[in-house]
Amino acid sequence: MLLDGITGPQDLKTLKPAQLDELAEEIRQFLIEKLSLTGGHLAPNLGVVELTLVMHYLFDSPRDKFIFDVGHQSYVHKILTGRKDKFDSLRQYKGLCGFVKRSESEHDVWEAGHSSTSLSAAMGMALARDLRGESNRVVAVIGDGALTGGMALEALNHIGHEKSNMIVVLNDNEMSIAPNVGALHHYLGKIRSDRHYQKAKEELHHLLNRIPAIGGKLAKTAERFKDSLKYLLVSGILFEQFGLTYLGPVDGHDTSQLLDIMKQADAIPGPVLVHVLTVKGKGYSPAEADSHKWHGASPYKIESGQMVKAVGPPMYTKVFGDMLIQLAEQDQRIVAVTPAMPSGSGLIEFAERFPGRMIDVGIAEQHAATMSAALAMEGMKPVFAVYSTFLQRAYDQVVHDICRQNLNVVFAIDRAGFVGPDGETHQGVYDIAFLRHVPNLVIMMPKDENELRSMLKTALAYDEGPIAVRYPRINGLGVQLEQDPPLIPIGTWETVREGDSSYAIAALGPMLGVAEEAADMLKREGINVEVINARFIKPLDVVKLQALAHQGKRLIVIEEACELGGLGSAVLEFYAASELDDMIVRTIGIPDLFVEHGTIKEQRREVGLTAERLADEIRRMQPKVIKRVTGQS
Amino acid sequence: MLLDGITGPQDLKTLKPAQLDELAEEIRQFLIEKLSLTGGHLAPNLGVVELTLVMHYLFDSPRDKFIFDVGHQSYVHKILTGRKDKFDSLRQYKGLCGFVKRSESEHDVWEAGHSSTSLSAAMGMALARDLRGESNRVVAVIGDGALTGGMALEALNHIGHEKSNMIVVLNDNEMSIAPNVGALHHYLGKIRSDRHYQKAKEELHHLLNRIPAIGGKLAKTAERFKDSLKYLLVSGILFEQFGLTYLGPVDGHDTSQLLDIMKQADAIPGPVLVHVLTVKGKGYSPAEADSHKWHGASPYKIESGQMVKAVGPPMYTKVFGDMLIQLAEQDQRIVAVTPAMPSGSGLIEFAERFPGRMIDVGIAEQHAATMSAALAMEGMKPVFAVYSTFLQRAYDQVVHDICRQNLNVVFAIDRAGFVGPDGETHQGVYDIAFLRHVPNLVIMMPKDENELRSMLKTALAYDEGPIAVRYPRINGLGVQLEQDPPLIPIGTWETVREGDSSYAIAALGPMLGVAEEAADMLKREGINVEVINARFIKPLDVVKLQALAHQGKRLIVIEEACELGGLGSAVLEFYAASELDDMIVRTIGIPDLFVEHGTIKEQRREVGLTAERLADEIRRMQPKVIKRVTGQS
Repeated sequence: MLLDGITGPQDLKTLKPAQLDELAEEIRQFLIEKLSLTGGHLAPNLGVVELTLVMHYLFDSPRDKFIFDVGHQSYVHKILTGRKDKFDSLRQYKGLCGFVKRSESEHDVWEAGHSSTSLSAAMGMALARDLRGESNRVVAVIGDGALTGGMALEALNHIGHEKSNMIVVLNDNEMSIAPNVGALHHYLGKIRSDRHYQKAKEELHHLLNRIPAIGGKLAKTAERFKDSLKYLLVSGILFEQFGLTYLGPVDGHDTSQLLDIMKQADAIPGPVLVHVLTVKGKGYSPAEADSHKWHGASPYKIESGQMVKAVGPPMYTKVFGDMLIQLAEQDQRIVAVTPAMPSGSGLIEFAERFPGRMIDVGIAEQHAATMSAALAMEGMKPVFAVYSTFLQRAYDQVVHDICRQNLNVVFAIDRAGFVGPDGETHQGVYDIAFLRHVPNLVIMMPKDENELRSMLKTALAYDEGPIAVRYPRINGLGVQLEQDPPLIPIGTWETVREGDSSYAIAALGPMLGVAEEAADMLKREGINVEVINARFIKPLDVVKLQALAHQGKRLIVIEEACELGGLGSAVLEFYAASELDDMIVRTIGIPDLFVEHGTIKEQRREVGLTAERLADEIRRMQPKVIKRVTGQS
Repeated sequence: MLLDGITGPQDLKTLKPAQLDELAEEIRQFLIEKLSLTGGHLAPNLGVVELTLVMHYLFDSPRDKFIFDVGHQSYVHKILTGRKDKFDSLRQYKGLCGFVKRSESEHDVWEAGHSSTSLSAAMGMALARDLRGESNRVVAVIGDGALTGGMALEALNHIGHEKSNMIVVLNDNEMSIAPNVGALHHYLGKIRSDRHYQKAKEELHHLLNRIPAIGGKLAKTAERFKDSLKYLLVSGILFEQFGLTYLGPVDGHDTSQLLDIMKQADAIPGPVLVHVLTVKGKGYSPAEADSHKWHGASPYKIESGQMVKAVGPPMYTKVFGDMLIQLAEQDQRIVAVTPAMPSGSGLIEFAERFPGRMIDVGIAEQHAATMSAALAMEGMKPVFAVYSTFLQRAYDQVVHDICRQNLNVVFAIDRAGFVGPDGETHQGVYDIAFLRHVPNLVIMMPKDENELRSMLKTALAYDEGPIAVRYPRINGLGVQLEQDPPLIPIGTWETVREGDSSYAIAALGPMLGVAEEAADMLKREGINVEVINARFIKPLDVVKLQALAHQGKRLIVIEEACELGGLGSAVLEFYAASELDDMIVRTIGIPDLFVEHGTIKEQRREVGLTAERLADEIRRMQPKVIKRVTGQS
């Protein structure tokens, strides 16, 4: 096996170009086998085997900087840079990260997770290099989907202006995670359909470039004519207009074509865009046949391509999608908006049922949010379905366009809380802290999937401004789903277990289960703790909070969200503002650090979001509380 | 005067086309006169007089939706829609807003303030119209600068995909607020330089469009040839490639050309981009000569064009710019990054001194932030100078790219706190709440301009991760500036006035003056309050906070920032986490609402950020405190 001899890029360079195909085949088999056990981003990585090989073969990492947009397609890079033995632990707690990770290797120079950051990173690295008078290469690999992200387009505009040396590899597989939308996508499609003219065009292009510059009065006309011919011949004129030299398109699975074009790109000064056509899932037929399903794969049987099916009650995502269909049947004003996540957000069936009312804008969270504001302005009921972590991209639009104008936009915030194997870049743990202070916004989180149905219904019935419902990336509890669940009065909490002790727990979403478990433990010790479903993060249930104070209760707030600025802080703020200074509150949330990949259970344990910890906190409060109670009686 | 007869768009429609020029002249004079007294966005509005007239003359507002990007160029629109009598109160407390404002008129259908939102708004309004089966027009007016904002490019990509009817007016004045940068800017320049060919080109273009479609095998070749000729003839091929029909460029001060092109645009199905060339400050020679200075004008003398000079000590902005030059002289790694605000951020002199180390990326906050991360990754010391309100656009990049990777980026957050006449869209009151929960970030705010110098020096000396210094849009206090101010130990507060009472005030930035004033009031009543400069928002001075608790002090935290999630909350969180339950804390900040335009003083008074209120709060705390003290002894 060639692969056995590859301990780093230096070993790769000893191979003959012709051997790269053999090695590519070995890497494919390696990926297919390893990921069948761990799961992971199989299809994207099968698509970039040859590309990554050629980059490491020709260039000189880590001196040359390789920047992988999103970073989920960096498995081949990891295999080639000494990490192939760690693939058994891929995406597992304390194991190999599913994205680029600087702590793993000197070859990992830029971390991502969210899309569309690679061009900005490349620009910064190129500028730093130029300022320091150095000469290393900067190579960014970006997918056609990620290119529609606003920040990538901002960067493209700047790259074309600065003219620093860099290579932008456009990894065009005709889809990002979902089939792509947008004008750029059509534009790339046009280029692809012209592929067979490519050879002839390239030759003409070279010829054209050899025409010497013409001076004098004729120069402008000649230049214009040349440009015009170029447009006829070269497909990537849009990128040329942005100020980049365009090369391609080239077959991304043909190593000799890749070697040629990358050498060519390397020789051209200024920014060069290399358009590489790849096939997601290349070499594994189930993945080629359904690259969407195989974007992020669960463990699977290699021969049948059958993935291990998730067991248990439906995910919150699915319950959301189903309820939205039910509500949309009754109200034509409801439209769903997604930034390239129709499947991840549970909206595939909705799209089939109401194709005209499903708006997929591509990877474009900012536009999605503000467009939703305008839809609401004109009397529609937009439901902006977005992952908590990606809503971070639209913070300003939430503040400035939606909440400031107080528009009836419904936010369906999926993957709120820990997200498991995607790790620190994708944790949905900040949305409470970055939304809670925005005026006019209502924020809810359900205790179970039936309450999610109620909340979505409540959100769409609410017409006093923006309203958000956040829900986790887990299975529901398996509770009975009511066909017509009740509306929930805004700003009301729910006591789910009465208690006769001095303690109450206000728990958010999935933490209610943790709270019940802790309450069970304490009950065995003779302490009956009240447990409250703190389903409104904003507005708070001030009646309940006042009652707790007047009853002399001590309150523990628990949430799977960052502790700073979270629901716990909201409760502290309320008591301070109400001058209820005798009230004792403890807050349990995620401490001030980034939590890496693992299972959600492991992530909760790591930060102490467990019943044991919660019970301990209450036990620790006891002496003080008893003293106080005594003092009062 | 024609203008006297214009009480709304309906009156405009009674005029003959030839009268529009006369009316334009009257409006110009009106603007020049009124703004000489109030100040305001003179140059942008002088640039769009004819454009706005033609829009209201041809189209049918408010049935047709006019969307002004940013909205600072809506004065002519306001004059034409019944608000000309309110211009004496422009940008003043309870007066006419300097931006589009729905509460002012039914003709104001979309509010903005931040740039680049108009295309998303237009897309949403067009989709809502289509879904409802209506037929009104949607017209967005966007500047060439705003077009480089990522969300505008996201929207452009989506607009070209959806093909809904709309008119995008590209108001191209060769600059936004500062001279534009970026490849798009060069591209537009190329079009402008070709203007004199325009007539001939247009005729050819029309001819070309009349060539009937060709079927069969020849179709592709013919289409390609046609496209190629188009590229030769029509300048806006980039927009055509994005899927919009391009018309122009046209002289934006020639009403008959404007009428023609807008009629033409109106007749074309799908999205049309009309490229209008305008001159900022048109018709007022001082503003034409320096449209940058006259973008946002102070009151001025009409004849001399002399603006009323600001009096008092230098603004914090200026002190920042000067200190950055001083530090950059000693450290070649320092680079300044600005998203199109070199002047507003006090960096003009820096740019002159260190042109290679000044990176203006255009209106592109997301790219600016992530590029800064990459500069830091490669050993540079980027100083990202950005207004608090615009940093909202880069929240995700702050979290995901800068803080998660723990990179040495310095944030210079200008206009933190109230901003005065720009009003609610520009208030810098959220940055504490949206930054405080982000791991690894240090956040400071100085008490005066000398401390700002210390903090900037401290920030650039700090090498353990990202660090932010925020400062207000006001004059400094006039304190002595030290040439070599001391470094400030991270996480330390400073007691600026000792007190022997049970009260302490922790005040942030300019609130320290308010605190001192309140302390003076209370001193006259025999209460000596301790006053603390709470200069670190994160990390807190835990030693000081513990000491206050152990001394039995009652603490009032005051900040000119949103109260939810602010510094006050940080203090509450600290005491709860430390189980210092006897500590009584009150927080004073900006309540949970959007604060409109006025002077900063008026805005502070409106929300109670005054010495009187602060003193009252302390007086109100007294009885309770005394009781506690008694109980303890």
